[in-house]
Amino acid sequence: MRLVRFVAEGLVRFGHLEGDTVVPVAGDSFVEALEGKEKGAPLALSVVHLLAPVPRPGKILGIGVNYAAHAAESVSFINTAKLEVQKWFNKQATAVNGPYDPVHLPKVSGQLDYEGELVAVIGRHGRHVPRARAMEIVAGFCIGCDYSVRDWQKASQTMIMGKGFDTHAPFGPALVTPDEIEDLPGLEVRSYVNGEQRQSGHVRDMIHDIAAQIEHLTAAFTLEPGDVIFTGTPAGVGAGFDPPKWLKAGDRVRIEIDGLGHIENEIVPEPDTTRIG
Amino acid sequence: MRLVRFVAEGLVRFGHLEGDTVVPVAGDSFVEALEGKEKGAPLALSVVHLLAPVPRPGKILGIGVNYAAHAAESVSFINTAKLEVQKWFNKQATAVNGPYDPVHLPKVSGQLDYEGELVAVIGRHGRHVPRARAMEIVAGFCIGCDYSVRDWQKASQTMIMGKGFDTHAPFGPALVTPDEIEDLPGLEVRSYVNGEQRQSGHVRDMIHDIAAQIEHLTAAFTLEPGDVIFTGTPAGVGAGFDPPKWLKAGDRVRIEIDGLGHIENEIVPEPDTTRIG
Repeated sequence: MRLVRFVAEGLVRFGHLEGDTVVPVAGDSFVEALEGKEKGAPLALSVVHLLAPVPRPGKILGIGVNYAAHAAESVSFINTAKLEVQKWFNKQATAVNGPYDPVHLPKVSGQLDYEGELVAVIGRHGRHVPRARAMEIVAGFCIGCDYSVRDWQKASQTMIMGKGFDTHAPFGPALVTPDEIEDLPGLEVRSYVNGEQRQSGHVRDMIHDIAAQIEHLTAAFTLEPGDVIFTGTPAGVGAGFDPPKWLKAGDRVRIEIDGLGHIENEIVPEPDTTRIG
Repeated sequence: MRLVRFVAEGLVRFGHLEGDTVVPVAGDSFVEALEGKEKGAPLALSVVHLLAPVPRPGKILGIGVNYAAHAAESVSFINTAKLEVQKWFNKQATAVNGPYDPVHLPKVSGQLDYEGELVAVIGRHGRHVPRARAMEIVAGFCIGCDYSVRDWQKASQTMIMGKGFDTHAPFGPALVTPDEIEDLPGLEVRSYVNGEQRQSGHVRDMIHDIAAQIEHLTAAFTLEPGDVIFTGTPAGVGAGFDPPKWLKAGDRVRIEIDGLGHIENEIVPEPDTTRIG
């Protein structure tokens, strides 16, 4: 199954993506939609606007420096001394963004960077889940980009301020269930900026694989349906170049993973987001 | 107004706390309840069980080392080199706990510690909120305890694994609106373990006050109604003693703040929390 969430004819709905067609499914929430039956007339993919498959995750977790080649390039901006321990951060739930929607270049920083990633979405509750059973609680996989504001990330050891800017957690285009993926470790994550390839890495090269991630996380807390895990980024981020290649307005960032499709976001200057009340 | 959330007669409802009486109010969510009218017969406080005023915050944020005296005692377990920059972490939304409910001593650690804190609950949206207007988006205040699992906190610079254990974010007993508080900076936070006073500090001694916290957070992302901010803990945590005074099963941890009442949680061995599905 390829579960999508979309807007068409002014309505936000869930659906099944079947080739170039979207078939609406019943369900108002991600959990309901996972089990939802098809309901309504099929729509051409070209007339719908895709949104993130989970509108408001209970938590978004990301693991830092989880590919060895990325760890090497990260020495300048992250303390990589303790790679044997999984290094987790949160992205704020308000950072969720659609797979093809604009990403804000922050008003308060010029150091916006991309991190193309495989994203795992939790489908069942899990606490103290052993590695061998970890994949039982995964509903499926998406493509995500863990946008990172490097100066804000570096300013505090906890990193979260640089990871949680509004619009900085796009993911999609569909939640692809595990039965649709033949060779998870063999998947390649590739990132492009304006068509120029920047990142590539295979899921098998993760330092801590997804099962190990779930075992570690659930030793401390409960994972719930709709929780979202950014599973780490391969080498090639902008901060790793000398001089760094920061994103600028007008750049188009595309992330591809074999079999999952792609997401592509345009970087735009942060609009007037000021809001009090 | 003192807004509470409670269970009585098998129903979870919101209410107004008036002395020793709880008057139910209309509203299924925190946001509705904030504006909700009184509805139903008053109940004696003694026959209701109080819950956290916000059942499921969109985010729970905590600031580290925000009282100078606590910063000094924290050198052994936190990098305090960059106090001029606010040091933020997330507690997971699944960590929410009631003001009088049991707190789990983790299976995976013996280093459970308390951090008594003033908690601010957001009532209106805020992005790029200047310090001078920051208090406009605060719905009110609670008492919280930022339970911290020190070895898990120290194992990774990002700290969040040690901050987000299930049951480790109790707060309450009521959300007290700002009009009920005459002298916010003058409030004293006090923590007791089995009746022995461990922490004390005044809100005025925060390194970064709540308005500065909101200004900083909203430079990066949107705060929303129901978001919860743990505003820092004063000196006297268990890790600051030599040898450290870790919590053990049977301990009772009580946090008091003048005018806000108290919360009190018993430490219990983590029950069988294993869950897959």
